[in-house]
Amino acid sequence: MDDFLYRSIGSNIAQAIVEGALKAGDRLPSVRALCRERNLSLATALAAYRWLEMEGHIEARPRSGYFVRARAAPLTPSAPSHRKPQACLIGVTARNMRLFETQRQPGIVPLGIATPAATLFPAEALRRHLNQAALRDPELLTRYPTDARGFPAFKTVLARRLAAAGTAIAPEEIVATAGCAEAINLALRAVTQPGDTVLVEAPTYYGLLQILETHGLKALEIPSDPFTGPSLAAIEAATRRPGQIQAALLVPNFANPTGSLMPETTKAELAALLSARGIVIIEDDVYGDMSHNGERPPLIKRWDTEGQHIACGSFNKSLAPGLRVGWMVAGRYRQKIEGLKFESTNATPPILQAALAAYLDNGGFDRHLSRLREQFRRQTARMAQLVTANFPAGTRLSDPKGGFVLWVELPPEYNTDLLAERALAQGVAIAPGSLFSLDGRFRHCLRLNCGHPVSPAIEAAIETLGQLAR
Amino acid sequence: MDDFLYRSIGSNIAQAIVEGALKAGDRLPSVRALCRERNLSLATALAAYRWLEMEGHIEARPRSGYFVRARAAPLTPSAPSHRKPQACLIGVTARNMRLFETQRQPGIVPLGIATPAATLFPAEALRRHLNQAALRDPELLTRYPTDARGFPAFKTVLARRLAAAGTAIAPEEIVATAGCAEAINLALRAVTQPGDTVLVEAPTYYGLLQILETHGLKALEIPSDPFTGPSLAAIEAATRRPGQIQAALLVPNFANPTGSLMPETTKAELAALLSARGIVIIEDDVYGDMSHNGERPPLIKRWDTEGQHIACGSFNKSLAPGLRVGWMVAGRYRQKIEGLKFESTNATPPILQAALAAYLDNGGFDRHLSRLREQFRRQTARMAQLVTANFPAGTRLSDPKGGFVLWVELPPEYNTDLLAERALAQGVAIAPGSLFSLDGRFRHCLRLNCGHPVSPAIEAAIETLGQLAR
Repeated sequence: MDDFLYRSIGSNIAQAIVEGALKAGDRLPSVRALCRERNLSLATALAAYRWLEMEGHIEARPRSGYFVRARAAPLTPSAPSHRKPQACLIGVTARNMRLFETQRQPGIVPLGIATPAATLFPAEALRRHLNQAALRDPELLTRYPTDARGFPAFKTVLARRLAAAGTAIAPEEIVATAGCAEAINLALRAVTQPGDTVLVEAPTYYGLLQILETHGLKALEIPSDPFTGPSLAAIEAATRRPGQIQAALLVPNFANPTGSLMPETTKAELAALLSARGIVIIEDDVYGDMSHNGERPPLIKRWDTEGQHIACGSFNKSLAPGLRVGWMVAGRYRQKIEGLKFESTNATPPILQAALAAYLDNGGFDRHLSRLREQFRRQTARMAQLVTANFPAGTRLSDPKGGFVLWVELPPEYNTDLLAERALAQGVAIAPGSLFSLDGRFRHCLRLNCGHPVSPAIEAAIETLGQLAR
Repeated sequence: MDDFLYRSIGSNIAQAIVEGALKAGDRLPSVRALCRERNLSLATALAAYRWLEMEGHIEARPRSGYFVRARAAPLTPSAPSHRKPQACLIGVTARNMRLFETQRQPGIVPLGIATPAATLFPAEALRRHLNQAALRDPELLTRYPTDARGFPAFKTVLARRLAAAGTAIAPEEIVATAGCAEAINLALRAVTQPGDTVLVEAPTYYGLLQILETHGLKALEIPSDPFTGPSLAAIEAATRRPGQIQAALLVPNFANPTGSLMPETTKAELAALLSARGIVIIEDDVYGDMSHNGERPPLIKRWDTEGQHIACGSFNKSLAPGLRVGWMVAGRYRQKIEGLKFESTNATPPILQAALAAYLDNGGFDRHLSRLREQFRRQTARMAQLVTANFPAGTRLSDPKGGFVLWVELPPEYNTDLLAERALAQGVAIAPGSLFSLDGRFRHCLRLNCGHPVSPAIEAAIETLGQLAR
């Protein structure tokens, strides 16, 4: 069977569905008819239909054949807010910690926290590289780190990868961190004072709001398009008055919770605009390696000619969630950030950086990544399909371009705080929409973690959610 | 040869020297005479003299025999300050980073930063435990940490060790951190606001002053006795006015830079006094496992009946400087601190905690520690001997009860900032006394790292320092 051919046929049919040539409920040609029409083997025709089924485009009805599924409409961009955005102090920690607690409950279906399944990552290869790094230089375990800024080999291979993705960075510009969270914390400590205001997207990852809270910072929320992120015009307007905003904390590549991707033109203009206005962009690139189409988008940092902006990322989503190794490119704040890093966690354990460097260099990271991206794409598509089949009429979904979360918008009368409580009582964790902004505007939304292969338990959980919602 | 006997004879003679029964320059009995006098074997008598020589009490003169050395007088306690202590904002980061830079210079003699030699630690055993922990549960590398507060086995074994050292702690009270520095940072963030005042010892570890600086905190310095640490009376007086001091950042066990040990009575009274006054003691116990006499002193936390105080420590000095695993016991601030930890570095890598837990449980940590303590005691004594032999008359030394730093007080007209500059030009790093307080009162002092076995290069370096000073 020709792998390429069945996907090509499948895509062809999917396109007809997306473009409306085939409509929800339409019956597709029988497998035999498809073979005749397109001159295919039976196996290839069957594979094409199975693929379309898995992608959520069609469904098989027993003894009737294949039909085009009713798909949820994609989300429309958030309506521009008529209120003038207000900077707010934040009070979210207690709620977030409660959500995090759910993860520790045994047997819970893990659709709450955005964590991928451990089984999707190359544990054995990582263990081997870890052990080999320790064998090569056992004193990595017992030597006081000679360079708090990072292990040279790690910085070199990371710089090479960023360059290949379109953002030229010298290894010396990189500081290794304890995950992306530490990088963002250090960036905020370097460029803001308590009481300052930081621009964020709405919806945005609740963890970012919580980090702002722990530093006594205010958040100014900018409505964000579920497909392309925050608009340049909105940011332009919000930053017009000098001295009001000190930093913008953005997730341009596959934002959590929508999976949106900021267009390159917006990135370029944003870098220039905020640089001119003395505002530091802190970009969270933790999902940057995980596009669903395989193309690695560049960082905003690529267009930062003045060293004004700070990029943060990690390997906790893409390769080794247990190792907690992240990185940052700190621009002109590098020296200050190196001091803060040294005084707060000293150095990220060199042995972990050495193991990652070796794996990145010759452990087949690109092969792993291409499998992982495809896996996340499928899981997200399958979850979208399950939501469509089970949730109330009028439910809309984001269309993630990368990462492994799905943003679900129920009709406005729904309250997902209640839904989350009831779901938890039935063993299902979700992240209610209210966590993703400060003013309750997403109380009818929720985020689903699609980081786990869709098991019968997850299928049942989505069914449960649908029943609870209805 | 009887190990116990030669040490006992040696100690006996050392006591006679310390008490003045034997004076500098006195000739000791010949080895044969000693054998006769005390009914010893030749080997035991020789071993006793070698031990006394290594300890710096006596010296062998070729063809003349053994003589009592001229020893530097121990430091007298700092004179009580006549100035009223003033809380100061701190500006030390740039200088400290410069000192830290010296460590990266190739071929430098490492007497500056307080770091032990990597060769003193069980790299191979740690590597084995690391690999075994990863083999037992490979998903430690790829699973999102299920508990940001720490790996259960690590917390259990640590609680057992603290209990054995006299401080009963439940595993749930422990939070695993990225070294002691993160623990102190989290404690300060939990209990202070920028602009608050924190009580510290003078002299104190410059890293603590720097951490205070990064949080916008003021330091109030309390003169500290080089043998017993800060006096209860001084702290009582400084904390009398309510609301002036929010926390006290102390190093009760083998303080850096003096190696002083706070008496248990002071610990007990301090715990009660500051608790009554609403002031949080943050104790840095990073050297607590490294007494020179083998006795593990308890934490101030032992006397904390209200959960008011916070203890911080790590295994970076005693076992694995490269792993950067620390811990804290956070008392009533635990929940807040768990939130701050989760939002700043999420979790300390579980694989490192698992490896340490396994080593601590059955890797022979106590055997390692007893060798290491003895090694540090010898190195410190040998360094004291070298300083005595090479430094100007009037030089005084601390008498560390644990750890691996030595505090050297030159006569008041000396300036160790200049000395440090000149020494660096000759390839020798030291930590000038001015780093250890905010007001220059220790400009005639310096700290020597005694963490490395005393090599000919170190001997030559001390000679160089002596020449430069004179």
